[in-house]
Amino acid sequence: SSWSRFGAEAGCRAPAVAAVLPAGGSGERMGVPTPKQFCPILERPLISYTLQALERVSWIRDIVVAVTGENMETMKGIIQRYRHKRISLVEAGVTRHRSIFNGLKALAEDQPNCRLSKPEVVIIHDAVRPFVEEDVLLRVVTAAQEHGASGAIRPLVSTVISPSADSCLDHSLERAKHRASEMPQAFLFDVIYEAYQQCSDYDLEFGTECLHLALKYSHIKAKLVEGSPDLWKVTYKRDLYAAESIIKERISQQVCVVMDTKENEEHVGRCLEEMLKTELNHVKVTSGQDLQQIILEQCYNFVCVNVMTSDFEETQRLLNMLEESNLSILYPVVVISVHFLDYESVPFGQRMEKVMQIREFAKEVKKRNILLSGLLIYFPQEEQKLQESLRQGATIIAALIKDRNSGLIGQLLVA
Amino acid sequence: SSWSRFGAEAGCRAPAVAAVLPAGGSGERMGVPTPKQFCPILERPLISYTLQALERVSWIRDIVVAVTGENMETMKGIIQRYRHKRISLVEAGVTRHRSIFNGLKALAEDQPNCRLSKPEVVIIHDAVRPFVEEDVLLRVVTAAQEHGASGAIRPLVSTVISPSADSCLDHSLERAKHRASEMPQAFLFDVIYEAYQQCSDYDLEFGTECLHLALKYSHIKAKLVEGSPDLWKVTYKRDLYAAESIIKERISQQVCVVMDTKENEEHVGRCLEEMLKTELNHVKVTSGQDLQQIILEQCYNFVCVNVMTSDFEETQRLLNMLEESNLSILYPVVVISVHFLDYESVPFGQRMEKVMQIREFAKEVKKRNILLSGLLIYFPQEEQKLQESLRQGATIIAALIKDRNSGLIGQLLVA
Ligand SMILES: [Mg+2]
Ligand SMILES: [Mg+2]
Repeated sequence: SSWSRFGAEAGCRAPAVAAVLPAGGSGERMGVPTPKQFCPILERPLISYTLQALERVSWIRDIVVAVTGENMETMKGIIQRYRHKRISLVEAGVTRHRSIFNGLKALAEDQPNCRLSKPEVVIIHDAVRPFVEEDVLLRVVTAAQEHGASGAIRPLVSTVISPSADSCLDHSLERAKHRASEMPQAFLFDVIYEAYQQCSDYDLEFGTECLHLALKYSHIKAKLVEGSPDLWKVTYKRDLYAAESIIKERISQQVCVVMDTKENEEHVGRCLEEMLKTELNHVKVTSGQDLQQIILEQCYNFVCVNVMTSDFEETQRLLNMLEESNLSILYPVVVISVHFLDYESVPFGQRMEKVMQIREFAKEVKKRNILLSGLLIYFPQEEQKLQESLRQGATIIAALIKDRNSGLIGQLLVA
Repeated sequence: SSWSRFGAEAGCRAPAVAAVLPAGGSGERMGVPTPKQFCPILERPLISYTLQALERVSWIRDIVVAVTGENMETMKGIIQRYRHKRISLVEAGVTRHRSIFNGLKALAEDQPNCRLSKPEVVIIHDAVRPFVEEDVLLRVVTAAQEHGASGAIRPLVSTVISPSADSCLDHSLERAKHRASEMPQAFLFDVIYEAYQQCSDYDLEFGTECLHLALKYSHIKAKLVEGSPDLWKVTYKRDLYAAESIIKERISQQVCVVMDTKENEEHVGRCLEEMLKTELNHVKVTSGQDLQQIILEQCYNFVCVNVMTSDFEETQRLLNMLEESNLSILYPVVVISVHFLDYESVPFGQRMEKVMQIREFAKEVKKRNILLSGLLIYFPQEEQKLQESLRQGATIIAALIKDRNSGLIGQLLVA
């Protein structure tokens, strides 16, 4: 669909496209033992987010990932667990360039691996740039079709300087005349494959830039495409923190309030909904009338409203639906079982029983990546007091959704 | 002390040092209305963290901050609220270079502002690089004493390329031969002041690099000093996320377990301490024998142990000490009132009373940036069950300390 829209404007037909992802790096800059592409974010390895970003793009036919022998089983496990499709694995080389070359070889028709066939255009992307959007992929592919090679660029954040041999400033480069070369890049397959076949061992060992190889060996001047800030590469530990915050923010954009049409419940549910809209800026708050549809639309946060009852029947029904939907395979889903109660009316024994019950439920559904907590909202007769309770409740709901901390599952919070 | 240690090795005497911080930027790259130096991290503006980093360095005599007229009152409020010392404010110019020039003018002896006097060496730093360490400040200052100018550099993360007029690749730069120029930089005051006095309007409008001005107008080749990854500049929204995570991580490195020497309490307290050590890797867990000392050492997390009692006397005592100490002026302090109880033995009425009581306390101390929650840990006779309770308790404590979310204050959690 994006090809028909975008490709038509640019006067191009849809080419056969594959992607190569070098993922053989050791992540030494991170200062952690795990290679950065395997570092967990919300318990899922970074590379799985990047694969997800590429898989979403329907016109990328094959994704070839180059991993070292020692990580091959880990990678197979990731593909299976997160149900990635259209992935082929090849052995990584000692350097990034050698890994890419191995990926290209697997795509070339003369290889014994029969599942793959030679594409017209190949995208090269990094395993550690998980936020790549379809738009920029389309732009580099289209530019590669026309020019033979293309790469995303970004403005420089710092001035670049050239040091002399004694570590003094020789000269500084004009920032406006230079750009940072980022990923993704795209090439006519023959252009980049020929370049790799011709290039020297020195290039394969010490080179960093595919655009440079295309220029040097295939005499192709790559078309440069302005990318968004999202293209940044997870390099340091702080980048992992940033990636985690961005992902948490993205899956916290929508909250679904599940309520019955019972008169009492619907009224309080609507009030809570209004309060959530007021307290959580930028968050889309929806009523769960058509839960199946909301799950399909990938809402990862559910507030289940119960009035004057502390049982979990309705919450249990929601949990069953979520478990069947597989929604929580990729991201932890937050479920908050909200109970509007007039405290004084609940005997102690019953309440502790409920506490224990929600903890058991929570432990159970945690296995399927669902984070369940309970929330008692004080339900007074007086309207103004109710508003105050609702505001408190909204604050607690926001905290649980924002932090998504599995250490707090099974708690019964009080607003 | 660092001068006597480091300066002696380098054969230097301690010079008079001042710092200039241009903070007039509008933060347009962030995509947020607030200029990035004023964006809150744990409710405190970013620039306050940078000031704190410079203030810690005893041999920096004066810190001159250039802010726009419209932010002058905001800045004065920040200085007062967070008790920053040795700060002088000047009006920012329209560009970064003009702001720095204004800062230098204020330091030059011929200015009417009599509080400041001309330093031998001036540091120039960014308001949005909060993690600068004394070590690199010392190195640039020492190098500036010897060479006239000095600046921190970092390896390039991306290849730098030069585009042609039609946005195609002209050439790519050899990554190994170039560096990113970062901050801090340092100069002999006369060198940089003279450069600014001579430089053109074009330089002041479009230039970005002080090292370049020192080279062009004072013919000084700056000494380049390798900086750590900490020097990075908060540029995009993701950088704010990263900064928040780093700051949260830093203040979560130590947890103090406060317990009585009463036989029963000390035993359970020690068990909890051991469990925290096991569950929270890299976290220093200390007993609160000498609380005043621990507060002085800037521990921001306290677990107050109470056995078979649900009263808050001891927690209240700790809270009073914290309030008197001013520890929470710069960072939110987490206090968890832990109560080891055999649930069955607590009547309901008493328990709800306690819930209400901790919420009231929490609301009160929140005003002074203290985040109070309660935690009931089930205290069975059986040793193995106790261990399980303790493990659960440690997980909850870790979650509260890690996220430091004020939306969850006043809750009574159950392990
Ligand atoms: Mg309901
Ligand atoms: Mg105690």
